[in-house]
Amino acid sequence: MRIGITGALALAAMMVTGMAGAQETIVEKKVFELPSFTTQSGRTLKQVRVGWESYGTLNADKSNAVLICHFFSGNSHAAGKYDAADAAPGYWDAIIGPGKAIDTNTYFVIASDTLVNLNTGDPKTTTTGPASIDPDTGKPYGLDFPIVGVRDFVEVQKALVESLGIKKLALVAGPSMGSLQTFEWAASHPEMVAKAMPVIGAAEADAILIGWLDVWAAPILADANWNNGDYYGKAPPLAGLAKALTAVTLHANHQDWANATFGRRPAKESENPGKTLTDKFQVQSVLDNAGMARAKLSDANHFLYLVKANQLFTTGGTSLADGMAKIRAPMLYITQPKDLVFTPDAVERTLKAAKDAGRDITHVTIDGVRGHLDGVISMKQAEGAIRAFLEK
Amino acid sequence: MRIGITGALALAAMMVTGMAGAQETIVEKKVFELPSFTTQSGRTLKQVRVGWESYGTLNADKSNAVLICHFFSGNSHAAGKYDAADAAPGYWDAIIGPGKAIDTNTYFVIASDTLVNLNTGDPKTTTTGPASIDPDTGKPYGLDFPIVGVRDFVEVQKALVESLGIKKLALVAGPSMGSLQTFEWAASHPEMVAKAMPVIGAAEADAILIGWLDVWAAPILADANWNNGDYYGKAPPLAGLAKALTAVTLHANHQDWANATFGRRPAKESENPGKTLTDKFQVQSVLDNAGMARAKLSDANHFLYLVKANQLFTTGGTSLADGMAKIRAPMLYITQPKDLVFTPDAVERTLKAAKDAGRDITHVTIDGVRGHLDGVISMKQAEGAIRAFLEK
Repeated sequence: MRIGITGALALAAMMVTGMAGAQETIVEKKVFELPSFTTQSGRTLKQVRVGWESYGTLNADKSNAVLICHFFSGNSHAAGKYDAADAAPGYWDAIIGPGKAIDTNTYFVIASDTLVNLNTGDPKTTTTGPASIDPDTGKPYGLDFPIVGVRDFVEVQKALVESLGIKKLALVAGPSMGSLQTFEWAASHPEMVAKAMPVIGAAEADAILIGWLDVWAAPILADANWNNGDYYGKAPPLAGLAKALTAVTLHANHQDWANATFGRRPAKESENPGKTLTDKFQVQSVLDNAGMARAKLSDANHFLYLVKANQLFTTGGTSLADGMAKIRAPMLYITQPKDLVFTPDAVERTLKAAKDAGRDITHVTIDGVRGHLDGVISMKQAEGAIRAFLEK
Repeated sequence: MRIGITGALALAAMMVTGMAGAQETIVEKKVFELPSFTTQSGRTLKQVRVGWESYGTLNADKSNAVLICHFFSGNSHAAGKYDAADAAPGYWDAIIGPGKAIDTNTYFVIASDTLVNLNTGDPKTTTTGPASIDPDTGKPYGLDFPIVGVRDFVEVQKALVESLGIKKLALVAGPSMGSLQTFEWAASHPEMVAKAMPVIGAAEADAILIGWLDVWAAPILADANWNNGDYYGKAPPLAGLAKALTAVTLHANHQDWANATFGRRPAKESENPGKTLTDKFQVQSVLDNAGMARAKLSDANHFLYLVKANQLFTTGGTSLADGMAKIRAPMLYITQPKDLVFTPDAVERTLKAAKDAGRDITHVTIDGVRGHLDGVISMKQAEGAIRAFLEK
């Protein structure tokens, strides 16, 4: 399949490439509920629920647990399949499984949905956010849901991990927004994180990323159906959300892929993109169709809350230097030099801050034509580095 | 002024930096009207009008004319001031004027507004597009206006140039979308172009650029007030257009500028961007304010028609190789390696196509922290290369 975006979950579908034939782990989705959770901003929420999965077996002294944190548009399906007939396994299946880099014969791997997860319409995702029913009112929170940050995601995961009796994680890892959670875990709970593996991310959202995240969100804010977040039970801002997801997909890829895959072909053989405003090139129709398919399973307010959580992010909550000073875990930092979201200069600033703070950080790069997305779909390249890091 | 975006015309205002003290040319805006103009798509329009300016004096044999083509959000104000008290001169004033690289003591420099120019609300811009009154109906064209391409922009300019009795241009030049017009001029009227100077552009819109242009346009399409282009006499899609212009400004800049200028400062000293969805960082508020200020003077349909014209662009109209084969003019190609819009690999493809076709092309790069925008505001760096190119 040359284009690589056809399914409802564009990123998931894009992952199919190069992942056939691996031994399959059958996994089940579980739900973790916290009767009460107080956010960093001081708001107490009742019945906070997130979905989670696990691969492998927790050992007797509960010392072999690994936590995987998901990316912006992802969920806790990091590895395996729900059913052998599933079109694709979880997103990091190339490095998580029996005999793989994060070997489930050795490790008990946990992956959880974040708060305000995007995929509210996906039956395999459980999250709590603006689209959830507020138990106090019986209605969706909408914008009454408090602003949450990456630290809040981490605190919910910490409660999940502790509910399993785990006191220390052998590894915390994740791509993109998952890397922000990884840095945050290492800084806010250094005693619980033995090793950390942030992938295709940075330890802080810089001004340009804050700006780009606004570009992603813009079509939602411009969609009158968004209605200041008050659209539950009415027509949701589907057109705006679809365009927002289109922007995410384009940004998460690289020109090498887009140009080689689509060139200047029209959407349909017989179609002239110059005929009317709505006639398209193939790159436009593929991205728009993928965006719309995803939008139908996603929530616009959750998108905006995720944007905010990413914009607010600095490791440790105050400054990059303070955050790095708190970290104790050795880090394996994996990036892609063609990443257009977390650019090489953001990576350099993270590395410099880590080194200035005296941190033990190993930097490895992967390559490919997908840019940012290679940190999700091309991780097999880092297999050797991950094994070495876990063994040392 | 550290931030550099305050005026109504964000890009114009951004240009102020580093341009003080030059000798000022006072210019006047003129209007060129074509009673009838037939587009490449075969539609005949009546009373097509565009604004234009000139600097210097046309010589007796009319051999000293230079044509400057403007960028996406620009207009024909390429140099000089309308009034000595103007805050800023035209966008390429650093290289156009008496004694400057394009020396108006030697050359007669013409700059014209394109068709479907964005700045319909600016009294110094004259253009014809969807917002114009169709003389046949007495109403704005709206989406009944035909799709136009860069070749159409060129043909209107050609009529303007010929109306002045000019048979050959000593130079055609322009930044960004102006470079597309420059390539197109050289390919479609090789006998009329002695030299060509495309700046911060490429000879073809590739798939990634087509995709990004859609990201720019997305907030307009998501804005219900856009109403399929039918909003004249009603509330225009101002929110969507403002967000679209914000995306253009961000993309036209580089992270080096955004990060150094804004960092992670909140919009206001006392404001916490984490308090609510609408509390902002400074980078967000400055870009949003600039976008909204520009939107009030711009037209959303014109924005969409410009996006389409850029997406459709291949030099010569068929393929990069065919286009390059038609060019005769020596070219001075000026680019910025940090350009995020026309990326280094697009520049490389243009260079390769030019060389494969045996073209005489000299490639020069400029630098700076603005990326794409350096081709508008930092052109003094190329002064020596431009002089040498014009003298050879």
